[in-house]
Amino acid sequence: MQKRFLITPGPTPVPPEVLSALSEPVIHHRAPRFTEILTQVVAGMKYVYQTENDIMVYAASGTGAMEAAVVNVVNPGDHVLVASVGNFGERWKKLNATWGAEVTALDYAWGTKAEPADIAKALAADPAIKAVFVQHSETSTGVVNDVKAIGEIVAGTPAILVVDAISGLGASDLKTDEWKVDVCVAGSQKALMVPPGLAYAAVSEKAWAVIAECRTPRFYFDFVAMRKKMTGDSAQTPYTPAVSLMVAQNVAIDLIREEGLQNVFERHRVLGKAAREGVKALGLELFAVEDPEANSVTAVKVPEGVDGGKIGKIARDKYGVWLAGGQGAVKGKIFRFGHCGYFGHSDIVVGLSTVEMVLAELGYDVRFGASVGAAEQVFMTSTVLL
Amino acid sequence: MQKRFLITPGPTPVPPEVLSALSEPVIHHRAPRFTEILTQVVAGMKYVYQTENDIMVYAASGTGAMEAAVVNVVNPGDHVLVASVGNFGERWKKLNATWGAEVTALDYAWGTKAEPADIAKALAADPAIKAVFVQHSETSTGVVNDVKAIGEIVAGTPAILVVDAISGLGASDLKTDEWKVDVCVAGSQKALMVPPGLAYAAVSEKAWAVIAECRTPRFYFDFVAMRKKMTGDSAQTPYTPAVSLMVAQNVAIDLIREEGLQNVFERHRVLGKAAREGVKALGLELFAVEDPEANSVTAVKVPEGVDGGKIGKIARDKYGVWLAGGQGAVKGKIFRFGHCGYFGHSDIVVGLSTVEMVLAELGYDVRFGASVGAAEQVFMTSTVLL
Repeated sequence: MQKRFLITPGPTPVPPEVLSALSEPVIHHRAPRFTEILTQVVAGMKYVYQTENDIMVYAASGTGAMEAAVVNVVNPGDHVLVASVGNFGERWKKLNATWGAEVTALDYAWGTKAEPADIAKALAADPAIKAVFVQHSETSTGVVNDVKAIGEIVAGTPAILVVDAISGLGASDLKTDEWKVDVCVAGSQKALMVPPGLAYAAVSEKAWAVIAECRTPRFYFDFVAMRKKMTGDSAQTPYTPAVSLMVAQNVAIDLIREEGLQNVFERHRVLGKAAREGVKALGLELFAVEDPEANSVTAVKVPEGVDGGKIGKIARDKYGVWLAGGQGAVKGKIFRFGHCGYFGHSDIVVGLSTVEMVLAELGYDVRFGASVGAAEQVFMTSTVLL
Repeated sequence: MQKRFLITPGPTPVPPEVLSALSEPVIHHRAPRFTEILTQVVAGMKYVYQTENDIMVYAASGTGAMEAAVVNVVNPGDHVLVASVGNFGERWKKLNATWGAEVTALDYAWGTKAEPADIAKALAADPAIKAVFVQHSETSTGVVNDVKAIGEIVAGTPAILVVDAISGLGASDLKTDEWKVDVCVAGSQKALMVPPGLAYAAVSEKAWAVIAECRTPRFYFDFVAMRKKMTGDSAQTPYTPAVSLMVAQNVAIDLIREEGLQNVFERHRVLGKAAREGVKALGLELFAVEDPEANSVTAVKVPEGVDGGKIGKIARDKYGVWLAGGQGAVKGKIFRFGHCGYFGHSDIVVGLSTVEMVLAELGYDVRFGASVGAAEQVFMTSTVLL
């Protein structure tokens, strides 16, 4: 009977309107109705991406779109640059290594941002670098990189910029075209407010030129085949799409349009700020550099003397609340609140309140209510509905 | 996009499993499958009512079942006793007056309980009293009457005891048979966790004898016709039932059985206590006498200097949270938290947090987080999942 709360950076809560759409009868993917849905989803994703670039839609998880970005761009032996600020930066490295790229890695301490000047320096040092891979929002730490500055730098070179915006798109501002992002990947289960299973890539003209020269074998993830089939009056996907998820995505995009993209970002800003002020009011330390645009995830250091491995388990088993733990190098050392997507003040309050109870149970000296009280004072200043 | 919270004593939140059942295709009410559903719902309601009495099921709101209780029992000119502790006690009076009963009223200050000794005295003073009408949980104040003591008294007389358990059944203990309740009415939209539209009555043998002598005209609400049609292997309802709501009720009863009725009561006890401790921690006064069994509703006095009419409006418009206001005589003077049905710690926390923000906006000196902190300390002592 216990209510469940996904205070995690994916999967995220799904709005009731979207859940209803998921229970509609399945439509056939070669029917005109599906062409309509696909066309609307593509138009909606362009709105969310703030782009005129081509949109690829896959039945895949976000990692599928990351791999698609690599296999459409990278030939074996190609030089690429990866700026890694966390677990998903490491994934860019692994994917590139898998497909035979020569990877130059810029590794930053987890919790910090990539330094655009380092990228400029690395590109200058190796003019053969064909593509730069970074995260927009690094889900494992909550850090949001300065994609605008990085885009400016990469645009001045022959390299293309490939951005993983899986947890950031629709939560923190990301102007795909204005910021000159060439391949930008996203997943349905974050701020796009749909269950996992859809992955996207927005592909620029500059990227298409690189893709045309890419000989890496690919079939399901071939952007060329996808673009061809998605063009024209009877647009379809080359292979069977996740029809119901796309119907759901269409409804979720309507919700985003209705709220307005700028209001969506502002809601996320307020929620992020409330989460940060909340944990600080408990005397906890933020894991990542503080940033008013870190709207998707708040990572918190496990305090001295508390068994970090137990936080998520107690929250889940006793209070029905899913928090995220640390990944990779920071496992057991941090815990994370997700707040990208269908989140409101209530989720932050429930998340913080649960953390208070769990930390108290684990022996931390909690001033009960302090985090929620701090969050409330942030909510009261909001200029948008939460 | 804003999430909505019904922190009201009806309608109440509906579990996802029940919502799913509501979207199943409609079954025909003269089909064997409906007989199965009806039989299961009746068996389940006997479990919840803790009774072997006959269960009547109506497509109606709770007031329909209250009227049914009156028209099946009361002849014009009959003497009845109503112990009124709030707005729904007043409704018993109006219903009885509508149908021509001679009403003796025991009126108690709103926020207090009916005194069983007064009922004993009134019955002794007028042996012609045919029925005693009381509330179990008085929704307008949150008071839960001592039905056990009242049942003991009424059972010693020829009168029958008619109890409105609409907001109480399934939240506070109510042993229909052991406590000798003769007609006990309930509604689907409270602790029974289904949207509004179903009303119930549990009818004892002692009541059936009274019903047999009742000449008040009645058709839709006739208990005799209902019992007859509901009996036997092909049990049905005499008129078209609210099929989908009954399918949903069947699922909701499964959830109650799975949690276990005693655990359900205990969860409600903890939530009620947390709500009371929360508002007290803000320096607010409870409207009703404090009672560890007042599990359905917590009524709170609007503090001095705050415009009570605005509390609900701001909570709803700004934070998406529905609280209940005062009814009748206490309109604008109290506000109410509902917590009967599909409620957990998260709802209390969201409700209290919202009240903090709303009262602060209305000029009350709020110690931010204090109410949530007090509630958390209650939750941490819970022996059941919340």
